[in-house]
Amino acid sequence: MNYPLDLEKLTSYLQKLPGIGEKSAERYAIAILELSDEEAEGLSDAIKSAKKNLRRCSICGHLTDQEICNICSDESRNKNVICVIEDYKSVFSFEKTGTFNGTYHVLNGLISPMDDIGPEDINLSSLISRVEKLENPELILALKPTVEGEATTLYIKKILENKKVTISRLSYGIPMGAEIDYLDNVTLEKALEDRKKISE
Amino acid sequence: MNYPLDLEKLTSYLQKLPGIGEKSAERYAIAILELSDEEAEGLSDAIKSAKKNLRRCSICGHLTDQEICNICSDESRNKNVICVIEDYKSVFSFEKTGTFNGTYHVLNGLISPMDDIGPEDINLSSLISRVEKLENPELILALKPTVEGEATTLYIKKILENKKVTISRLSYGIPMGAEIDYLDNVTLEKALEDRKKISE
Repeated sequence: MNYPLDLEKLTSYLQKLPGIGEKSAERYAIAILELSDEEAEGLSDAIKSAKKNLRRCSICGHLTDQEICNICSDESRNKNVICVIEDYKSVFSFEKTGTFNGTYHVLNGLISPMDDIGPEDINLSSLISRVEKLENPELILALKPTVEGEATTLYIKKILENKKVTISRLSYGIPMGAEIDYLDNVTLEKALEDRKKISE
Repeated sequence: MNYPLDLEKLTSYLQKLPGIGEKSAERYAIAILELSDEEAEGLSDAIKSAKKNLRRCSICGHLTDQEICNICSDESRNKNVICVIEDYKSVFSFEKTGTFNGTYHVLNGLISPMDDIGPEDINLSSLISRVEKLENPELILALKPTVEGEATTLYIKKILENKKVTISRLSYGIPMGAEIDYLDNVTLEKALEDRKKISE
């Protein structure tokens, strides 16, 4: 192709983003050329400053541009309830529901003996010390239902055994709006197992 | 949402690109955070330099990072054949076919009395002077089959009436792979009108 070099370069960088192939990268590159000078400069600067300024909250491990993230520093949130998640993307998902008023703890990974990832490789020790400083805290484990998720859940349960802490996990079951016919066996089994009584 | 400010900013800039809504912008923003420092910096710089360095070729109006684009400066291309197109994106489309060995002329718009765009508002005068310098040139008008495209085609035909120049337009017809049943009437009519004899 007879692309000018600068366009070629931009296109190849855009292709590093997930789900962007050659065609879309081209389309976005051309769209960027058609942005106003201010907008293009803004986009360019936003990438640099996001990459430079964003780091992990020293309490919960969530993404922040301060020392402590805006959730941990929010006076109105219940510090005694900690939702334990694999990565910071889940924080955004939970925040969007708008119903959770506790705090989070981002593990930044899951225990995976297969991949040689042990408890010391993820952000777990700071969770333990957080829990130890609280009175009767509640931990909600919101880890994915895979071998790694289960291993991590079990490990956390075990290590906090003798501490005064309530531990729960997200419920398993049928996702809202799903067709029962098309559900996989394991989900259906879990939904049956965890069935909820609705009569008196 | 409890986004860190830098992430929020990046997300809102990404939403300026076509077809990127809130969800995708978030996804790309997070993907950018997960690029290596070099890659993120590369992307940021590529945006700035593409925006800064790319300009119009002084001969044909195509995008280039030099004074004259790599097509106009290519000795092997037939300078006597000029494909006239609406915008530079079409150059990329034609170049991808790999079969056209002439040059281009980018009008950067079409004549549109409705929108008050006249011949002097598009890159037409330089086309006329290009044609005048050539001996028996061929113009291929590759403008879209709309009112504006037709108006521009007619205008170019008229203004070059007394010059020695062969003018053709792209053929209209059935796109390759199309189902005849699903074609619109106008296309079918054109395909019938422009039918090509295949017997001796």
